[in-house]
Amino acid sequence: MSSCNHNCASCASKSCSDRNQESLLAPNNEKNKIKKIYAIHSGKGGVGKSFVTSMLAASLAKKGYKVGILDADITGPSIPTAFGVTEHLHGTKEIMYPAVKDNIKIVSINLLLENPSQPVAWRGPILANAVKQFYNEVCWEEIDFLFVDMPPGTGDVALTVFQSLPIDGVLIVTTPQDLVSMIVGKAVNLAAMMEIPIVGLIENMAYMNCPCCNNPVYPFGPSHLTEVAGDYGIQPLASLPINPDWNKQIDAGKIMEIDYPYLDKVCSLLIKSLRD
Amino acid sequence: MSSCNHNCASCASKSCSDRNQESLLAPNNEKNKIKKIYAIHSGKGGVGKSFVTSMLAASLAKKGYKVGILDADITGPSIPTAFGVTEHLHGTKEIMYPAVKDNIKIVSINLLLENPSQPVAWRGPILANAVKQFYNEVCWEEIDFLFVDMPPGTGDVALTVFQSLPIDGVLIVTTPQDLVSMIVGKAVNLAAMMEIPIVGLIENMAYMNCPCCNNPVYPFGPSHLTEVAGDYGIQPLASLPINPDWNKQIDAGKIMEIDYPYLDKVCSLLIKSLRD
Repeated sequence: MSSCNHNCASCASKSCSDRNQESLLAPNNEKNKIKKIYAIHSGKGGVGKSFVTSMLAASLAKKGYKVGILDADITGPSIPTAFGVTEHLHGTKEIMYPAVKDNIKIVSINLLLENPSQPVAWRGPILANAVKQFYNEVCWEEIDFLFVDMPPGTGDVALTVFQSLPIDGVLIVTTPQDLVSMIVGKAVNLAAMMEIPIVGLIENMAYMNCPCCNNPVYPFGPSHLTEVAGDYGIQPLASLPINPDWNKQIDAGKIMEIDYPYLDKVCSLLIKSLRD
Repeated sequence: MSSCNHNCASCASKSCSDRNQESLLAPNNEKNKIKKIYAIHSGKGGVGKSFVTSMLAASLAKKGYKVGILDADITGPSIPTAFGVTEHLHGTKEIMYPAVKDNIKIVSINLLLENPSQPVAWRGPILANAVKQFYNEVCWEEIDFLFVDMPPGTGDVALTVFQSLPIDGVLIVTTPQDLVSMIVGKAVNLAAMMEIPIVGLIENMAYMNCPCCNNPVYPFGPSHLTEVAGDYGIQPLASLPINPDWNKQIDAGKIMEIDYPYLDKVCSLLIKSLRD
């Protein structure tokens, strides 16, 4: 290791014996008492990862749990929109205050931008740093579940979140179409590389009911959830339908009004983890 | 500009009078004669950008044009899969040879990996450099159309492609659901920032026909193509249906067998540009 720069955070080596795993974790803010941190991840974008994150947060908040969302996916403004949050984040020199809506604390890059349609054309290290600050420079206070809406794929920000936040588990979201490809494998392997436990696999956009004849329609092909989860030795968690009406409610910031029993089993699993 | 490091490539300033726009462009390989380079971009992932790229390439190759695909989207292995390409890329010290299938030349990071389900956990600058090499260290030779399948969003690799490849135009792909959000705006604004002309807007996953009653079903809500394109002053190019059978053929590497008239108008527009 002659080229060692003694900065584990910028080194990709997994085999170095001098590596200090702890040193990669961002220091926690001592005012924050966060019980569980779950990352919602996917091998590629557009699978409804932000939808699942928002729905998990909404479901657990309705059950009375203290929930926070750290929106680390800077490419889309999905989370603030779903909850109808438009106010800018404010804070002091030392600390930033999350937006609070329906008892859910939300931090998102889109709540810092002057103009939300401005592209976040930041280079990786700047983005990655912003996400770290969203963890340890935000006044989260007491939280049962902090959900991290990850950027899709295996790029800079995903790596940084996995390396620098003490994630308790990853929920991998996919679609029936992507289940047959290698995309789920990439997400599974990244979590394994980072030594973060995988809670399980969620199949989104599995089917919709034809509004005319009410039969199920499979826009992305038949479900492969059970077999693919089995192939990777992870738990199949849920198979979620498409409903354009939900999209309309989410675009209008009314996610809390959606009756959504499809994640109940996942919520029970997460609630159980609080006692671990 | 006291902090100028005299390297325009690593500087984000647009207003610096010393900026040398040309210096950002990767030097062309003189053996390559590429007539037109079009980037297929989207504000977020999962909108079927790679599908549109592959279909454009297939359609134009069927019409007899010389087509190449530079797969700059390293998060998913979509392009090689669609064309059934699995062979590893090979080359010499100086030059890399593209895979050739159905007369289409293809270069993709996934064709360099030992194991295609290995996550490409590379930091931004390494990725960005790989894409530049895919342009100027690949033996493309004579090409009418080089399609660049962009990574989604406005991150490192997207920025580098826009800055360092002489892109003739951008085609922005979206879904009906994303049309109502700010996501298209981000892609439009990025192209404007980079001073690259936008060819127009393609709406993917616009509808599908119920296999039972044959009525159209709109999984992602009604079309907003014309109005949103109008809002941004860009051309509405095409509204593309969903068909799970195509996905099956693409997963089996049989994209050339799909009869796909939906991009004919776009193809005519691109063919016309060859004469400009």
